[in-house]
Amino acid sequence: MSEQTFSEWLRQQCEPEWTAVVTHPFATAIIEGTAAGDAMRRYLEQDFQFVDSFTALLGAAVAAADTFEARVPYGTFLGQVATTEEKTYFHRALAELGGRTEVPLEPVTAAFRELMDEVRRSQDYLLIAAVLCVAEWCYLGWASRAAEPLPESFVHREWIELHEGAEFRAWVAFLRGELDRLGAGLGEERRREVLGVFRRAVELERAFFDMAAG
Amino acid sequence: MSEQTFSEWLRQQCEPEWTAVVTHPFATAIIEGTAAGDAMRRYLEQDFQFVDSFTALLGAAVAAADTFEARVPYGTFLGQVATTEEKTYFHRALAELGGRTEVPLEPVTAAFRELMDEVRRSQDYLLIAAVLCVAEWCYLGWASRAAEPLPESFVHREWIELHEGAEFRAWVAFLRGELDRLGAGLGEERRREVLGVFRRAVELERAFFDMAAG
Repeated sequence: MSEQTFSEWLRQQCEPEWTAVVTHPFATAIIEGTAAGDAMRRYLEQDFQFVDSFTALLGAAVAAADTFEARVPYGTFLGQVATTEEKTYFHRALAELGGRTEVPLEPVTAAFRELMDEVRRSQDYLLIAAVLCVAEWCYLGWASRAAEPLPESFVHREWIELHEGAEFRAWVAFLRGELDRLGAGLGEERRREVLGVFRRAVELERAFFDMAAG
Repeated sequence: MSEQTFSEWLRQQCEPEWTAVVTHPFATAIIEGTAAGDAMRRYLEQDFQFVDSFTALLGAAVAAADTFEARVPYGTFLGQVATTEEKTYFHRALAELGGRTEVPLEPVTAAFRELMDEVRRSQDYLLIAAVLCVAEWCYLGWASRAAEPLPESFVHREWIELHEGAEFRAWVAFLRGELDRLGAGLGEERRREVLGVFRRAVELERAFFDMAAG
């Protein structure tokens, strides 16, 4: 792998899908504040359906991490995300858009939840970290392309702010750092196994934005 | 079980060990501020060896809980305990007492960690909640016997305060509530399985205080 970190290698192996996600027309519409209310409602209704599986996956990371030091950032993030910000945002945004918190799952939503649940049940820390890393790093990718001034509508603006800023960057850096730390000494077969999960997550992120774009 | 809740039934099945824990001479020495420095050091050195397994077990509860609403209190507690209070207390108290954070495990410490790890790996939410409930409810049991004024030494006083007060009572009430909620409809065999884990935890709590008392 020469000087390349494991997380960077994983990302590059997923091109061109990775770039398709972070430059996706629907993501661009969010950061430009032009995503229509109906599309945004449908997107957030489906995204809200991940809150439970994603929270459970964070718990699984706390449970399966190989050191106490690694458990701490997951625990801290769990305390923040699950209990306050994201849930509050979803409820306010869905109220604004006339959306619902319980909706039938789109096929891509069901498939992504199944990946999260499968990885959670595996108790395999590296696979858990890989899925979490894709979800957060991809979102940092598109959100960090937003230019000032951010959209006026809180529905767009806060969704960008939740996936940008110093704290979120540190969180993504931690996730990448965990993949780099654990990936450094892996054999070829195990690296391919991690890549398989990482790639499925990237493909699902792209399909999720495709679904949102209609 | 007549009108009795499941958590109350579990506790009663563990008498007289339960009462032996909450009225244990070593616990009494803590709340009276008479536990000698050497004994307190040995006790806290061993107790600190649970921080990692206990944190992991909280993560497993987040991962394995059957509802999002149940994941939230574990996530909140994780955010608090793992990252700040208890760890800070341990480091300050061990510094005060000339103790170490890394020590050889006493047999009872090793056995209790093994129970926590076994239950964590089971991904069985009811068993996970049972072990967490014993650990916290027992500690509320002895700490709530403390009378004002609390001991002057912060080593004794803060250890009591960490296991008392409105917030800790609410946390124990939540854990008991989870056992009650999930235990209500259980068949006899499953109830016995939960009791088996609950009882092992109570016996280990007693053996842990016995070890501390020397």
